[in-house]
Amino acid sequence: MSWTGSVSYFDVAYRDLISTRFKKSLNRAGTTVLQKTGQIERTIDREFADEESKYRAYVHQHFEKECQALQKDAKQYQDAMRSMTTTQARLAETIETFYGAADRSSDGAMASHAFKSAVEELDGGIQRELEGPYRTTIMEPLGKMNAYFPVVNEHITKRNKKLLDFDAARSKLRKVIEKPSEDPTKLPKAQQEHDDAKEVFELMNDQLISELPQLLDLRIPYFDPSFEAMIRMQCKFAEEGYEKMSAVQRYFPDNVRDDYAAGQLDAQVEAVLQEMRELSICGAN
Amino acid sequence: MSWTGSVSYFDVAYRDLISTRFKKSLNRAGTTVLQKTGQIERTIDREFADEESKYRAYVHQHFEKECQALQKDAKQYQDAMRSMTTTQARLAETIETFYGAADRSSDGAMASHAFKSAVEELDGGIQRELEGPYRTTIMEPLGKMNAYFPVVNEHITKRNKKLLDFDAARSKLRKVIEKPSEDPTKLPKAQQEHDDAKEVFELMNDQLISELPQLLDLRIPYFDPSFEAMIRMQCKFAEEGYEKMSAVQRYFPDNVRDDYAAGQLDAQVEAVLQEMRELSICGAN
Repeated sequence: MSWTGSVSYFDVAYRDLISTRFKKSLNRAGTTVLQKTGQIERTIDREFADEESKYRAYVHQHFEKECQALQKDAKQYQDAMRSMTTTQARLAETIETFYGAADRSSDGAMASHAFKSAVEELDGGIQRELEGPYRTTIMEPLGKMNAYFPVVNEHITKRNKKLLDFDAARSKLRKVIEKPSEDPTKLPKAQQEHDDAKEVFELMNDQLISELPQLLDLRIPYFDPSFEAMIRMQCKFAEEGYEKMSAVQRYFPDNVRDDYAAGQLDAQVEAVLQEMRELSICGAN
Repeated sequence: MSWTGSVSYFDVAYRDLISTRFKKSLNRAGTTVLQKTGQIERTIDREFADEESKYRAYVHQHFEKECQALQKDAKQYQDAMRSMTTTQARLAETIETFYGAADRSSDGAMASHAFKSAVEELDGGIQRELEGPYRTTIMEPLGKMNAYFPVVNEHITKRNKKLLDFDAARSKLRKVIEKPSEDPTKLPKAQQEHDDAKEVFELMNDQLISELPQLLDLRIPYFDPSFEAMIRMQCKFAEEGYEKMSAVQRYFPDNVRDDYAAGQLDAQVEAVLQEMRELSICGAN
């Protein structure tokens, strides 16, 4: 920008760009109006219209929403997995401090130490073995898929603009043919413009007709490995958790194993609670 | 409350209560001042002082903080477990919709259906089998333990107040003995007040001396069943998760089992991504 009154290169370039864009969009708006009043013929490509409507019906109704939901759910699941191992690690640390402060050689202290080691291994293992694969096989593919939608929509919009340009160029050529000009350059110029516009439009149109269905067909094979990876990782997560926790479970007597659901541990808790309640400082009469 | 000038029963009772409390606290403040200036003898119970200082040193430095940390950590772990099964259930539902919309009889649709059932069973199972025991064996005992601290502290405060009353009554009795009054009721009254104050104080004092160490000793047996229940439940949680997920894993070909970490699924994802990239609408030249 210059404040001295001289006009810089960038000013000119920027104005040219704006004016070209403005002219283009004005021309296209004009073409649309003239098509509505029947003064410019409108190209209707049935094949494209079919593919586009199939694509839009499926993508806008389902696929785009599903992919966004999948990305969100997969992220939340990853957060929940992380949160489980980190809260478990914190819990194990507090329990170890609790038992360690009482008597380091007691059964409880031994079990709490084993618990802490198990949970640390688990937490480290998750970060080391699951975070990377989860990201590369699930989060990144879903992110890329979601990033495609705006790109594809942009291609469709661009194709529609190029179609308007082509319709306008064809109409202009027809007029020059119907009312030959005295200027002998007018016809070849209009012909060239028509041919260029046609070529640009057809390239984009053919691309979309062939690729929209391919993109739709790819959606399942695209997601299959992510789904499989997700199941395997959840399985691995549970398996590791089971192995590590079983090792800690060995510190407790066998007879209570699996008894917690049957109320055995409830009763144990209740008995100690009762002892506590019998202390008058804890509220006994 | 009455606005007509008459005084209700509650007004009187409330004022009496306030005035009694006020008088008591004024008397005790007076006793404290007189003890500081040496005019009233102060009872020092070495045995109580020992138990109290042991209790305070351990409870305030460690146990109270640890119990609060345990309660907080245990709550967060419970939330993380819940969050894991609920996010997993949501994820499974979205995946089933995704595959179901494509082809209900495909492998993916079958696997996603099995995944959804497994996850629903898991989510229901957690709520049914773990939530209740987790609450009764872990959350409730920790909550009760944390609720004891203020009660015990209140007992100690009350014992100290009763001690001031006893010291004051003893001093008063001594004065009446040293300077006999002309009123013959004064001595037996002071004696009675002294004996009552002594009895009340000694009851509370003996209680604390015998129960503070018991309370401290109970802390480990009190928490043991909760800790054991916690390990067993985490084990159960992982075991159930592993069983359910293994069932879903069977829907995938054996050869890729356990391969995800070795980058096999990464490669599969990469291959589909490559197909996608080759579509010019997805950004190829």
